Amino acid sequence: MDDVLSRAELLARHSDSREHYTRTYLSAAHRAAAGQIAEWMRAAGMSVRVDAVGNVIGRYPGRMGSDPILLMGSHFDSVRNGGKYDGVLGILVPIACVGELNRRGERLRMAVEVAAFADEEGARFQTSFLASRALVKGAAAFAGILDRRDADGVTLAEAMHAAGLDPARIDDARIDPTALAAYVEVHIEQGPVLLGRGAPLGVVTSIAGGSRHLVTVCGAAGHAGTVPMAMRHDALAAAAEMVLAVEKCAAGEGAVGTVGMLEVRDGTGNVIPGEVQFTVDIRAPRDELRLRTEEAVFARFEAIAARRGIAIERSKRHEVRAVPCAEWLQDRLAASVRRSGAEPIHLPSGAGHDAMILAELADVGMLFVRCGAGGASHNPAETVGADDARLACDALLDFLKTF
Amino acid sequence: MDDVLSRAELLARHSDSREHYTRTYLSAAHRAAAGQIAEWMRAAGMSVRVDAVGNVIGRYPGRMGSDPILLMGSHFDSVRNGGKYDGVLGILVPIACVGELNRRGERLRMAVEVAAFADEEGARFQTSFLASRALVKGAAAFAGILDRRDADGVTLAEAMHAAGLDPARIDDARIDPTALAAYVEVHIEQGPVLLGRGAPLGVVTSIAGGSRHLVTVCGAAGHAGTVPMAMRHDALAAAAEMVLAVEKCAAGEGAVGTVGMLEVRDGTGNVIPGEVQFTVDIRAPRDELRLRTEEAVFARFEAIAARRGIAIERSKRHEVRAVPCAEWLQDRLAASVRRSGAEPIHLPSGAGHDAMILAELADVGMLFVRCGAGGASHNPAETVGADDARLACDALLDFLKTF
Repeated sequence: MDDVLSRAELLARHSDSREHYTRTYLSAAHRAAAGQIAEWMRAAGMSVRVDAVGNVIGRYPGRMGSDPILLMGSHFDSVRNGGKYDGVLGILVPIACVGELNRRGERLRMAVEVAAFADEEGARFQTSFLASRALVKGAAAFAGILDRRDADGVTLAEAMHAAGLDPARIDDARIDPTALAAYVEVHIEQGPVLLGRGAPLGVVTSIAGGSRHLVTVCGAAGHAGTVPMAMRHDALAAAAEMVLAVEKCAAGEGAVGTVGMLEVRDGTGNVIPGEVQFTVDIRAPRDELRLRTEEAVFARFEAIAARRGIAIERSKRHEVRAVPCAEWLQDRLAASVRRSGAEPIHLPSGAGHDAMILAELADVGMLFVRCGAGGASHNPAETVGADDARLACDALLDFLKTF
Repeated sequence: MDDVLSRAELLARHSDSREHYTRTYLSAAHRAAAGQIAEWMRAAGMSVRVDAVGNVIGRYPGRMGSDPILLMGSHFDSVRNGGKYDGVLGILVPIACVGELNRRGERLRMAVEVAAFADEEGARFQTSFLASRALVKGAAAFAGILDRRDADGVTLAEAMHAAGLDPARIDDARIDPTALAAYVEVHIEQGPVLLGRGAPLGVVTSIAGGSRHLVTVCGAAGHAGTVPMAMRHDALAAAAEMVLAVEKCAAGEGAVGTVGMLEVRDGTGNVIPGEVQFTVDIRAPRDELRLRTEEAVFARFEAIAARRGIAIERSKRHEVRAVPCAEWLQDRLAASVRRSGAEPIHLPSGAGHDAMILAELADVGMLFVRCGAGGASHNPAETVGADDARLACDALLDFLKTF
C-alpha cells in the first residue's frame, strides 16, 4: 500500500502539456491514463470495464454474486496546471486497499467497485461533474452539449468518437441504484483546515452548497482632482464597502464569502470610477445558513448603495444546494480513522466533488487527506505526505473490512 | 462679445475624428484651428505670431511701446473625445474682450497678449503642458521626447517638420519674463462646485498639487470554498479597506483622494484574490495638506496590511507641487466679477492648467466659468451657459480696464 504517491507521480506524466500537468477529457494523455488505471485495477484483482462515457470501473466481487455494491472513486481529469493528487488520490487509495485484500485473499460481505471518473473539472468542454452525472442521469447529462467545442474546435461528440465512444449509447453509463450500498470518496482536502489542526485525516460532514452573483455598481465618473469628496458617487468606494460586507457577513458561522473578480470599468488613475463589476461567491455547509448569509449581504449592499446615491444591479449566475454526508458513514469513517491511530476531524467540504452527484443515488461519505503547502490546490504546489497517504489507506481498509 | 460659444462650436469642427471632438498637437485639424484662432485674433485688432512650437500669440499693444505685458491664454488641443470648452474658453474670452476694446478704440496701460497654447493635454505624444513649458524652459521642455512616436509611428520631430516648425529652434519660444506683469487664465471649472453653489464665476485660490502612487497588495490566493474566513489573507479585502481609508483620510479639509484603477490579478469568481494593484491619487490646494493626507493614508495602509498579514509595496509615479494664485490677482478678479453682477466664489482648482507652468515666470490668476451637466468635463457632455460666457467676458473686460 506504499505505492499511492509514486503512482500519482507516474499518472501525472500522462499530461496534455509538457510544461505542466493538465489532463482533459478524452485527450491522448487522458486515454493513456485510463489504460494505466485499468492496469493497476487488474493487478489489484479487479475486473475492469470502461463505460459509455469513458469512466474506468474496477470490480472486486464480494463473497456472493448478489452482494450489494460499495462504490468508491473520484476523477482523473485535472484543471489546467493542476495538482497531482486532486481526484487521483480517490482512485489510487481504494485500488491500493483492494490490492491488499486481494493479496491476503480476503473477500468482503459486499462487492467493491472503484470508479475512475473521466471528467469532473471539465476544463476541455466547460462542463462540471459530467462523467459522474452520466452514472446518475445517463444521456440527460450530455443533453445540449454534444456539439460544444473545445479550444481547437473539436466537438464533444467528435472527441467521443475519436476515443471509441458512441454518443448514442451514453445512456448505457447509468447504474442501478438499488444495488448500491453507499458511495465513498477519498479526496485531498484542497484547503488548510487539517494542516492548521495538525490532523492527517478528516471526515466530511457536508459538501457545501454555493451561489455566485454578478453585481454591477453604477456611480458617477468624474475628474479625480475637481470633484470634492462630499459630492462624489464613487462606484469603487461603494464596491469596497460591499467587499468588506461580504467578508463580515460570512465570518463566524462556517459560511465563506468571496469577491474573487472585481473590475473598474475604464479605470484610470485620474478618474473617479463610474462603474464597477464584481462577483460574490457564498458557500455554506447548510443551505439555510447560506441563504441567511446571502440575505444579510444583499441587505447591506442595498444600504450602502442608498447611502451613497449609487445604483446596483445583481444577477445570480449559479446555485448549488448543499449535500450532507450520511451520518452512519461519517461515524464508520471516523471510527476507522481512530483505529488507524489518528484523531478524526469533522469538517465540511467547501469544494464540490463527484459525491455530490452520487448522493442522488446513494448515501455518500468522504474522507479528506491533509493538503500540504498551506492547503494549496488546483496548482502544482499541491502535496500529500507519505505518512498521510499510508494512513488514508489504513483507514479505508479498516472501513472496508468492518463495513 | 456674444460670439464666444458659437466660436467654440466652430472651432470644434476642426477635429482629428469625424465621430468625436479630438484635436491633437500638430494634426491637420490642429493646424486649421490655429489658423482660425489667428484670424479671430487679427479681427480683434491684434498682431499675430506663431512661435517655434506652434503656439499662436496675439498682441494688442498698450498706450506706449514699452508697456508691461498682461499675458492671457489657455490651450487649443483636446483630450480624445473631449469637451468643446476645455482650454478654448481661455482663448476665446480674451479675444472677445480685446475685440471689444478694439471696437471702442481703447488702449490700456499695458500690452495685452493672448496665447493659444498648442499642446497642454498632450494626447498625441503623451506629454503634459508641453507648449506652455516651451515659453518658460525653451528647448529643455522638449529634451528627450523629440523621437517619441505617436500611435501612427510619427515622431514628435517629424510632426514638427511637417507643420513647418524647426525642432532646432524650439528655444526661440522662450519669452522674456521681465516684461510680464502677470498671467491670467480663464477656464471652465471641470467640476461641480460652482454649479452646486449656483455661481456663474469663480476665482481660483490655488492650483492643487498632487501625487500618484501605485500600490501592490500581496496576500495569499486560495480556493473560495475551502479556506475558512479566519485563515484567509485576501488581497482584495485588504485593498477594499485601503480604498475606504483613502476616502476617509481625504475628506473634510479640502484634499481629494481617489483610487481610480484597481485590478485583481488573475481574478476569477471562485478564487480568493492573491494580488491586487491599485492607484492612489491625492491632491490638495496646499502641499502641507497633501503631504499630511498622504502620510495618514499610508499609515493606515501599513496598519491594515499588518493586521491582515499581507504585504504591500508602493511606488510614487508622479508628484506636482501646488501653485497658489497671487492674492492681488484674486482680489482684482473678484472685484471685477462683483462689478459684473455676480458673487465671486473662491475655490481651488483640482485640475492642472497652463497657469501652473507660467507661475515660474509671473504671478498668475485664474477665473473659472461654471461647468454644466453636473460638472462633466473631458467628455462631450461638457457645457457652458450663454449667460455665464457673457458674464465671463464682462468680468474679464472690467479686469483689463482696471488693471
